[in-house]
Amino acid sequence: MIKVSVMYPNQPGKTFDMDYYLKSHMPMVKARLGDAFKGMSVEQGLGGAAPGAPAAYTAMGHLLFDSLEAFQSAFARHAAEFLADIPNYTAIEPVIQVSEVKM
Amino acid sequence: MIKVSVMYPNQPGKTFDMDYYLKSHMPMVKARLGDAFKGMSVEQGLGGAAPGAPAAYTAMGHLLFDSLEAFQSAFARHAAEFLADIPNYTAIEPVIQVSEVKM
Repeated sequence: MIKVSVMYPNQPGKTFDMDYYLKSHMPMVKARLGDAFKGMSVEQGLGGAAPGAPAAYTAMGHLLFDSLEAFQSAFARHAAEFLADIPNYTAIEPVIQVSEVKM
Repeated sequence: MIKVSVMYPNQPGKTFDMDYYLKSHMPMVKARLGDAFKGMSVEQGLGGAAPGAPAAYTAMGHLLFDSLEAFQSAFARHAAEFLADIPNYTAIEPVIQVSEVKM
């Protein structure tokens, strides 16, 4: 299984509209991906390892796919629409990572 | 639900022994956490958003807890042992983040 993680670095002065992300952005992404979509999760950063330390990422969204090919095919078709929606909830440029789920 | 993400940055020249991590480190962590442990996942980085781009993290391990208090209490008791095991599989210093699972 393939996990695509979209991680929004915690940047002073930049906000992240979690409500819009949960209720509008991620449901739109899920709908566009169709059958290729195998699951998603969303997390809000609370802190780092040490008490009081800031979280590295203010928010993270993860999408699951059966294979790299399934992700690439489904994602490429809608990437422009996904990216165009980002300014509606944040000015933070996300770090995107594709991973293989090992456990 | 609380997710603790331990993310190992992709650093040229530094290796990560995924076999040891899956078969020895993570099972040890799970055993030590006891009832506070609510789930785990492990991912291996494949790449970034653009084709051919390197993954930001060579590996990520995630642990689930019912609450921040449950994590802090269970983790603090064994943190020294968890940290002491890291050199057995990598010389990479991880980024640790505590998040609230929103979806």
